[in-house]
Amino acid sequence: MNSTLDIAVIQTACTSNREANLQATIGQIVDASKSGAKLICLQELFASTYFCQSENHEHFNLAQSIPGAITDQLSELANQLSVVIIAPVFERRAAGLFHNSAVIIESDGSLLGTYRKMHIPDDPYFYEKFYFTPGDLGFQCFETSVGKIGVCICWDQWFPEAARLTALQGAEVLVYPTAIGWQAGEKAEFGQSQLDAWQTIMRSHAIANGVFVVASNRVGMEENIEFWGSSFVADPYGAVLRTASVENPETMIVPCDLSLIETARTHWPFFRDRRIDAYADLSKRWLN
Amino acid sequence: MNSTLDIAVIQTACTSNREANLQATIGQIVDASKSGAKLICLQELFASTYFCQSENHEHFNLAQSIPGAITDQLSELANQLSVVIIAPVFERRAAGLFHNSAVIIESDGSLLGTYRKMHIPDDPYFYEKFYFTPGDLGFQCFETSVGKIGVCICWDQWFPEAARLTALQGAEVLVYPTAIGWQAGEKAEFGQSQLDAWQTIMRSHAIANGVFVVASNRVGMEENIEFWGSSFVADPYGAVLRTASVENPETMIVPCDLSLIETARTHWPFFRDRRIDAYADLSKRWLN
Repeated sequence: MNSTLDIAVIQTACTSNREANLQATIGQIVDASKSGAKLICLQELFASTYFCQSENHEHFNLAQSIPGAITDQLSELANQLSVVIIAPVFERRAAGLFHNSAVIIESDGSLLGTYRKMHIPDDPYFYEKFYFTPGDLGFQCFETSVGKIGVCICWDQWFPEAARLTALQGAEVLVYPTAIGWQAGEKAEFGQSQLDAWQTIMRSHAIANGVFVVASNRVGMEENIEFWGSSFVADPYGAVLRTASVENPETMIVPCDLSLIETARTHWPFFRDRRIDAYADLSKRWLN
Repeated sequence: MNSTLDIAVIQTACTSNREANLQATIGQIVDASKSGAKLICLQELFASTYFCQSENHEHFNLAQSIPGAITDQLSELANQLSVVIIAPVFERRAAGLFHNSAVIIESDGSLLGTYRKMHIPDDPYFYEKFYFTPGDLGFQCFETSVGKIGVCICWDQWFPEAARLTALQGAEVLVYPTAIGWQAGEKAEFGQSQLDAWQTIMRSHAIANGVFVVASNRVGMEENIEFWGSSFVADPYGAVLRTASVENPETMIVPCDLSLIETARTHWPFFRDRRIDAYADLSKRWLN
């Protein structure tokens, strides 16, 4: 039995032309499928620029329902190509209620489920708390035709709790659609260390949980942020299998031997030894 | 106000001569103090070889009570030099009840507390479940005269829960006394990736929790294991400040500016955003 899953990570640059963004991504999905990819991972909010750099009520018009126009198009494509697609969507749930979400689309075009970003950042030029209500669907693993796939989004990547709770549900591949980059003036002094920390924290989730980790990040200069690309895939030992460019759109196909999960976890049996009797205080804000 | 703490990491090689091991370590502590170190971190089970490579009832004779002969000597030394010492001890608590512990010795020689290793490994040549009862004192932070110090031991380092629970109590520096190395035949194929994963997982605790991380590991060939040294200190961004040699004893002094913790945590405010309403299942073994 072949345990290798070819995962495509799609890294792209966005403009204010949403139809052009969508068509560019669709083109990359078709290419990825031709190259044999069976799981295709898109970047966070792939259909638009990263609009959270200011608090602007107009931007709520970018949101769509689930299902909606974007998921309809991608469902048709997934069915046609017989691929699983992880599709981030700026989700309009009701008037005044929006989420930063990702839809898991099965290879027959059905919508398998939605993950709503649980941890919402708010930093200069990342004003997400203005736009997105924190997710209320919890951490989830989706049983797809190509494997058990967990999805978390961007800021979630800094929280070991998110990775752990997704892995405990059986996830074999943990996918992080992301939008992260350097702010003007930061790159020279902090650029390399920020990127290194970002990759390190996700590699650590691969190690701690014995899973593959996929990060898909955008590229290009948008207003105040230079998105740093560097999408990557890490194996269950935390080894980086492939990294994309810092500045160019890329369709990266990475063969992942899922049988490595069994090997990694029997050699590094962390799940055997978790002290679940002593973890209750993880549900506290602070301990003094 | 000077916020810099000079931390000494003592990495050494052990023989079957326990008095020689103790004297060598005492010599390194004195040297570290002369160089200005105020917090001195010893390696796991520093007083003996790593005896867990076989299940041998004789080895229980190596254990000592707390307080006991080793802590008495180190208390006197701590008081004399006015330094805080993290001193791992094979703890005899009662007949048939032993722990892999570390004592936090204040600069006046008093014993501030004991941490008992919570996660106990059991792998070929690391038969620790035979020797050590899992700790029953939980994860702890110790308010010392040089800062708030958390201590976890070796296998604990692979569990993000341990680092988090220690940090939530206010730890500024998280110290990991360790005994890890390559087994015969593994080094050529897996050596670098194992060492890399070991460093990565601890750097990730520094990042996720905005703390300094100190790892002290032994060197030298003992029976089936070549201990890989590589003791290191990472700052709250996960950047490695200094790494010791792979094969030589070393007394490494690393100045750590504790004010970086405030900077790191306000710029990367992960504690602000933890979804404590959604973490209860971390106390479960598995979720399906």
